[in-house]
Amino acid sequence: MRHLLSIEDLDRADVERILDRARAFTEVSEREIKKVPALRGRRVLNLFYEASTRTRSSFELAAKTLSAEVINFVSSGSSVEKGESLKDTVQTLSAYRPDLIVVRTPHVGAAGLVARWTPAGVVNAGDGKHEHPTQALLDVHTLRERLGTLDGLDIWIVGDVLHSRVARSNVLAFQMMGARVTVCGPPTLIPRGFEALGCAVEHTLDRLGEADVVYALRMQHERMTDSFVPSLREYAAVYQIDGRRLGPRQVLMHPGPVNRGVELSAEVIDSPQALIGQQVAAGVVVRMAVLYELLAGRASGDRAPTTRAGGMEYA
Amino acid sequence: MRHLLSIEDLDRADVERILDRARAFTEVSEREIKKVPALRGRRVLNLFYEASTRTRSSFELAAKTLSAEVINFVSSGSSVEKGESLKDTVQTLSAYRPDLIVVRTPHVGAAGLVARWTPAGVVNAGDGKHEHPTQALLDVHTLRERLGTLDGLDIWIVGDVLHSRVARSNVLAFQMMGARVTVCGPPTLIPRGFEALGCAVEHTLDRLGEADVVYALRMQHERMTDSFVPSLREYAAVYQIDGRRLGPRQVLMHPGPVNRGVELSAEVIDSPQALIGQQVAAGVVVRMAVLYELLAGRASGDRAPTTRAGGMEYA
Amino acid sequence: MRHLLSIEDLDRADVERILDRARAFTEVSEREIKKVPALRGRRVLNLFYEASTRTRSSFELAAKTLSAEVINFVSSGSSVEKGESLKDTVQTLSAYRPDLIVVRTPHVGAAGLVARWTPAGVVNAGDGKHEHPTQALLDVHTLRERLGTLDGLDIWIVGDVLHSRVARSNVLAFQMMGARVTVCGPPTLIPRGFEALGCAVEHTLDRLGEADVVYALRMQHERMTDSFVPSLREYAAVYQIDGRRLGPRQVLMHPGPVNRGVELSAEVIDSPQALIGQQVAAGVVVRMAVLYELLAGRASGDRAPTTRAGGMEYA
Repeated sequence: MRHLLSIEDLDRADVERILDRARAFTEVSEREIKKVPALRGRRVLNLFYEASTRTRSSFELAAKTLSAEVINFVSSGSSVEKGESLKDTVQTLSAYRPDLIVVRTPHVGAAGLVARWTPAGVVNAGDGKHEHPTQALLDVHTLRERLGTLDGLDIWIVGDVLHSRVARSNVLAFQMMGARVTVCGPPTLIPRGFEALGCAVEHTLDRLGEADVVYALRMQHERMTDSFVPSLREYAAVYQIDGRRLGPRQVLMHPGPVNRGVELSAEVIDSPQALIGQQVAAGVVVRMAVLYELLAGRASGDRAPTTRAGGMEYA
Repeated sequence: MRHLLSIEDLDRADVERILDRARAFTEVSEREIKKVPALRGRRVLNLFYEASTRTRSSFELAAKTLSAEVINFVSSGSSVEKGESLKDTVQTLSAYRPDLIVVRTPHVGAAGLVARWTPAGVVNAGDGKHEHPTQALLDVHTLRERLGTLDGLDIWIVGDVLHSRVARSNVLAFQMMGARVTVCGPPTLIPRGFEALGCAVEHTLDRLGEADVVYALRMQHERMTDSFVPSLREYAAVYQIDGRRLGPRQVLMHPGPVNRGVELSAEVIDSPQALIGQQVAAGVVVRMAVLYELLAGRASGDRAPTTRAGGMEYA
Repeated sequence: MRHLLSIEDLDRADVERILDRARAFTEVSEREIKKVPALRGRRVLNLFYEASTRTRSSFELAAKTLSAEVINFVSSGSSVEKGESLKDTVQTLSAYRPDLIVVRTPHVGAAGLVARWTPAGVVNAGDGKHEHPTQALLDVHTLRERLGTLDGLDIWIVGDVLHSRVARSNVLAFQMMGARVTVCGPPTLIPRGFEALGCAVEHTLDRLGEADVVYALRMQHERMTDSFVPSLREYAAVYQIDGRRLGPRQVLMHPGPVNRGVELSAEVIDSPQALIGQQVAAGVVVRMAVLYELLAGRASGDRAPTTRAGGMEYA
């Protein structure tokens, strides 16, 4: 495995191996010295064409915790502003001999192109509305750690599926891990034919009580170029997850950043049912595991990427 | 001590302990290898909602010199732009398990809120016009190193007290360390009732000759939403510290960045009486000492944060 | 040697010594662990007043690979925005005790001023249209690695010489290393009297076949405040290097970022004759060698900066 471009690059055994390793990495974050030398001297380039607090910093922290060098490229202040093409930028950056490029762009399929243009490994950190596979992995990890398994779970993904880069990757990942998925939102915010992914589609929250997991999506104000809902107030009246709608045995997830009072009410954000903080924490250890999978595996040839008895050996 | 939110969190013994340690750290900056492993593997998050060359980079350099990992969040390019609340941002970042969050915001009291929302330690790097305690510490350190003690000194703080986040912290710190403080500026730029802090208030420089230390504040053009002075030229005519007004035995300080020709004339900026460079250098070692106080103390339980005979032991 | 401000600071022996060291550093980039402790604990400040993907990140990667600490200052988000003068910024940053300041500004001669204002070493990473000496060094390095020597080569520099910070440094460096240089472009884009540097001047590509090396410059759209060419289309018709004009034994260089379809056609960019990627890779190792020359030499007194038999000793 050289790249992680799509959740479809992985099978269930891959996911379980990566997430077992993420679990092993959790104790590193709990130490006083939050650093292991596993990827010392490796070069990770963050190539971000969109603002992203969580994803960029999560990859950066993951890489640094593994002692890799991180170089950040964000569109502001880079030659992207001088009109250089993505291809030329990638070829330029490849001359730095990065071991891995983490790329976020607004264009569907761009991460796959990057992988063609560079000898480095590539992780897709979001390509437009298409895929965001490490988000799916961290969400699966969060549920595994909380509920043990996804087998047989009913998971509802609620909200703006159309503009979400999370929805597609997560439907595929949740189903691969044994869950049944329902997406729910106004017809204008569910892409036509989304059922082809294998999930059910609902347009009301009437049967939300059947869900074990409620996964609310962010209303993407900033991406909406058209009028998909009459108003945020009306959207919230019908689709907001609040204390009345969320059942006591359901857990709540959200990819962040949350629009308080739109897709979620303040009370559920701060409730113990919400796993939002756990998702963010999972992001770091899952990305550590992905970096380790892609880089440590390559460097050491065919060494089996499994944990050893008596603790992990990182270096 | 978990947080440094206000200079009022400290008593005189605390200040002296921290500044004694800053003095011990000074030799690290003079070495060829400017790095010690004291805080290896600790995570410091710089969360800055305002531009700041000096303060952000000073904390970053302090943390890196102690071998801590630093992750920078600045408002541009972060989910702040997506309208996420400060609370949600802090809760997200807390999931990264930072040991310390250094926060600069334009809002009075925000650092205190951050401290409530995170299990990490918090350093207030400026909350609006309110407090900036590490600035006060570095100014006390600069004076101690130059003059030995603040006991009995007369310190004049001149200029735009109203918009300054430095003035309040510094009046409190200078007085705690035994100095007498006078603030001086046009009535429009001194908050009503500022005498309640224990300092004298003057509106002319007539008695500036009584000062041992002249501390000029920056005219905050960029924060002025109203017309507080007729013009910068008229302000300078009455309040600028120049070679005529600055006595030969007085020392001059300024928190930077300086408006040359407004609050200070070029000649005094470049004179040996000016301690402006020393203040910047003090910023790094004082912040090293604050990080060490908050982090090394916590990690090692109740170990007394004092220097040992025969030099410091950092790791 | 404390500073690298101009290619004229170097003689041929200096260039050869630096580039021999760059060659030795190349194998570091090919290792699994791309890091050596040569400059551990040294402080490198990147002070950039202009956007630059390549140059800033190349210096950053060079410094980090040598284990130096890097602090980035870019104009956005710094006190540059508060109107602080370059002098005050440099004096402030000097209080951080940097070992080296790498400075890029839009102003001719600014790097030389920085060197006067700081006790740190200074590398000019581009001062307006004036000089960019590490670019010249990396270009010489690229040619030496490909062709063995520059002695007797014919090098054509084609395009917007007027707005280029690369042209001047490169003419001087190529000639110092034994090449004959011709600059070629429309009369509006060649500064008057440029022949005084010792190069020939042409206004058409008719005799391009005489060149061993074709070095195309970037059309600086973003710096053009006036109308120097009728249109990019007409410019390209006369001066674009394409598959028809580039001979089979010529090599092609460009400082990047490329305007595809303007100064170069897509086919030549992606041809094996193009050394553009090699130039970028050379940038990292040449900057490592410059940092090593300026810093390791200073720290260890008069130790000869030569490689030892049996491999380099970095620390």
